[in-house]
Amino acid sequence: MSEETVNESTAEKDEARHAMKMAKKKTARDKIMATKTDEKGLVIVHTGKGKGKSTAGFGMIFRHIAHGMPSAVVQFIKGAMHTGERDLIERHFGDLCQFYTLGEGFTWETQDRARDVAMAEKAWEKAKELIRDERNSMVLLDEINIALRYDYLDVAEVIRFLKEEKPPMTHVVLTGRNAKEDLIEFADLVTEMELIKHPFRSGIKGQKGVEF
Amino acid sequence: MSEETVNESTAEKDEARHAMKMAKKKTARDKIMATKTDEKGLVIVHTGKGKGKSTAGFGMIFRHIAHGMPSAVVQFIKGAMHTGERDLIERHFGDLCQFYTLGEGFTWETQDRARDVAMAEKAWEKAKELIRDERNSMVLLDEINIALRYDYLDVAEVIRFLKEEKPPMTHVVLTGRNAKEDLIEFADLVTEMELIKHPFRSGIKGQKGVEF
Repeated sequence: MSEETVNESTAEKDEARHAMKMAKKKTARDKIMATKTDEKGLVIVHTGKGKGKSTAGFGMIFRHIAHGMPSAVVQFIKGAMHTGERDLIERHFGDLCQFYTLGEGFTWETQDRARDVAMAEKAWEKAKELIRDERNSMVLLDEINIALRYDYLDVAEVIRFLKEEKPPMTHVVLTGRNAKEDLIEFADLVTEMELIKHPFRSGIKGQKGVEF
Repeated sequence: MSEETVNESTAEKDEARHAMKMAKKKTARDKIMATKTDEKGLVIVHTGKGKGKSTAGFGMIFRHIAHGMPSAVVQFIKGAMHTGERDLIERHFGDLCQFYTLGEGFTWETQDRARDVAMAEKAWEKAKELIRDERNSMVLLDEINIALRYDYLDVAEVIRFLKEEKPPMTHVVLTGRNAKEDLIEFADLVTEMELIKHPFRSGIKGQKGVEF
């Protein structure tokens, strides 16, 4: 047998092995997926120190917009962040997505606890109204975890509301680092965005289109 | 002193303590942020088993669109996923964001390695063309990590290209689980989306507006 023939036949065997392995994987996967038949409104939490918590939340809002499904956003922490998304949504998709920025700036910007609490409560009242409205298929509570962490809002009350008053098919997304344990326990889908490497550490500032 | 007065004065002290703590935090933060003055095109990796890797990638693309900055997407794995984003972008923002779906389905769907390799290479050629075009401020290489993981593409070649040929101000986002160690080492910003809890485990299927 020439070397070429040997190589060819090894290559063929590799291909066949790959095809068989992938066929097995497909069968296993199809079987698992066939058991997933239910739909329900999910309580989704994005937490952790990494990037993408709010960004992925807005990504789901854009999916809703893409499918023509009504949604809403309440921003619990005002700031330079996510103004891009707000502009884009208000400019193009105001009929499909309601957008409220009710919170104050980051707590270390305001230094006024009473005011922060009042703003968080106002944002939560609006959030409840939007969630109760069954036309909304998804409500994003952006950075609410920060308000919960500083006890501007009572996590027990938030969980009680989601449990007792959220319409069964409505998705609610709660973002922000340091999500409370009780909320993680209660949620259906929890992702922790973990920071592996960050360019701020090497003197790079937040950039348009990336951070905001 | 009446009990009320005691409580009031405790509350006042709490408020003052809170304000002082937050003022300190603000000073520290402002000082750190003042050192972050550089801008550069980042190599950004979203990996891990959790949700939000592609979703956050698309979120950054929407930020670019919001700011009127040109961008592009190459999808390395075709499938049911992210068709919402593609529809939305093509329907409304085709002038600002080029969108290419060049990869095949998940490898366990095709079972044909030679074809998968050819498709991945085609997608990579398109990616290089889009990255070289300095008009694009960001290029999202969606699910490229899967193509790299199965060695459909050579990670050393991808890193070499990003190092030597990527224009300095262009951001490139690479998503998908199991990112190669060399890529993580090379990237500027790496986030691992970690799965804490997933509703598939309790029989809930992928839902419109959430997963796709």
